[in-house]
Amino acid sequence: MLIIGELINGMYANIGKAIKERAKAEIQKCALEQIESGADALDINCGPASKQPLIDMPWLVESVQEVTDKPLCLDSSKPQVIEVGLEAARNKTIINSVTADPEKLDVIIPLAKKYNSQLIGITISKKGIPQNKDQRLELAAAIVASCAEKDFPVDNLFLDPIVLPVNVAQAQLKDILESIRDFKIISEPSPKTTLGLSNVSQGTNVRSLINRTFLTMAIAYGLDSAILDPKDKELMDALITAELILNKHIYCDSYLDAYKKK
Amino acid sequence: MLIIGELINGMYANIGKAIKERAKAEIQKCALEQIESGADALDINCGPASKQPLIDMPWLVESVQEVTDKPLCLDSSKPQVIEVGLEAARNKTIINSVTADPEKLDVIIPLAKKYNSQLIGITISKKGIPQNKDQRLELAAAIVASCAEKDFPVDNLFLDPIVLPVNVAQAQLKDILESIRDFKIISEPSPKTTLGLSNVSQGTNVRSLINRTFLTMAIAYGLDSAILDPKDKELMDALITAELILNKHIYCDSYLDAYKKK
Repeated sequence: MLIIGELINGMYANIGKAIKERAKAEIQKCALEQIESGADALDINCGPASKQPLIDMPWLVESVQEVTDKPLCLDSSKPQVIEVGLEAARNKTIINSVTADPEKLDVIIPLAKKYNSQLIGITISKKGIPQNKDQRLELAAAIVASCAEKDFPVDNLFLDPIVLPVNVAQAQLKDILESIRDFKIISEPSPKTTLGLSNVSQGTNVRSLINRTFLTMAIAYGLDSAILDPKDKELMDALITAELILNKHIYCDSYLDAYKKK
Repeated sequence: MLIIGELINGMYANIGKAIKERAKAEIQKCALEQIESGADALDINCGPASKQPLIDMPWLVESVQEVTDKPLCLDSSKPQVIEVGLEAARNKTIINSVTADPEKLDVIIPLAKKYNSQLIGITISKKGIPQNKDQRLELAAAIVASCAEKDFPVDNLFLDPIVLPVNVAQAQLKDILESIRDFKIISEPSPKTTLGLSNVSQGTNVRSLINRTFLTMAIAYGLDSAILDPKDKELMDALITAELILNKHIYCDSYLDAYKKK
């Protein structure tokens, strides 16, 4: 699966400070550590405190691609911030994210096409967060339909069912898992699926355990990608073992190490 | 889910020795430790080295039910050994197990009825271990049909898809997971599902990690019960968290402890 490292995000104190002080080495260290731990792509987010995201985003992109050619997942709700990131990027890109609102889809999908970027479509809209699986499927279908209409290849789309914390929306987690499975049958070829994992454990005191258990279950439901902390070794071990069980890579006694060196 | 503790088994050195020496306190300690760790029922197996299973089985049953009234899972391939266990049992019982062979079903199902016992039906036959999901479903259907024919209530039946080690039958594990889901639609009411977990990691050097990852995925596929080592704390934490995610018990900050005190 495509593992997107979540740690280059201005909301984390070390990264927020590094952005402010233009401490490029700190950002690059964070990029390399995530890749070393098994990340296939890196999320890039200026964070909510950034006062100049139109300058911070390209600086982050340039800093990171000096040390790696892994894909960059440009993370912002503002289309202009996404676009300056796309302009700065030489690496492959993934736009994170577009909502199911027509006015967003009409702006972001053409951007993804213009820059030959992949795209994460998140199943929320101005009406708010979906309350059940049917609402998630309806929003997912709207995103897929908009891609098809705009001639954006659906296999470059990742649908994110939006993960909610277990301590506030426990009854919805099964719906979220089933959405991962059901999104795949919306179209042929299928859209891919991803999720922002850490949200599931927000506000709990056993975060890593809840994260890795939910991820393992989501992989059982066919998840293609996740945005997560690749430096959480137990999480990565669970991910690698879940993919082993689904026969995605071959068993050997040192399969955990072998996977990270792939 | 119904957690069946696997540790009272003569194949383990401490239990084999305790059976031989009639060290009742050792057996009872093993029973109580498993219950303390969260076991809902206890597997009872004399082990392959037992020379007098017709005597050892009732002794084990009597030793265990002196200290607990939890259900006992009488584990033997020999119908006579099962029957002497059933005779000795005052606690509820589960017969572990019957294969899909007609001559076994014709003996064991009447026993289960006579003693008002639940029953584990394992999807193997004299022809050997099934090679794919279709073969598992065919054997499962034969077991369910035999229960129906003999008027044994199918909701007292647990189907076990027979788990194989990841290092010898890696390509079959996904089929085994899907069998857990598909067994449920063989009849209405549905049969229950169980599995002997530890087999999945036999011969590997990260047994606990593979066990808990496979169990978490099996729970995602709807597993109702498992025979496992309840003293493996990380395994139990994964199990409890997977059930939390499926909304089977309510989140609280101390949900791990709360579950074990249930």
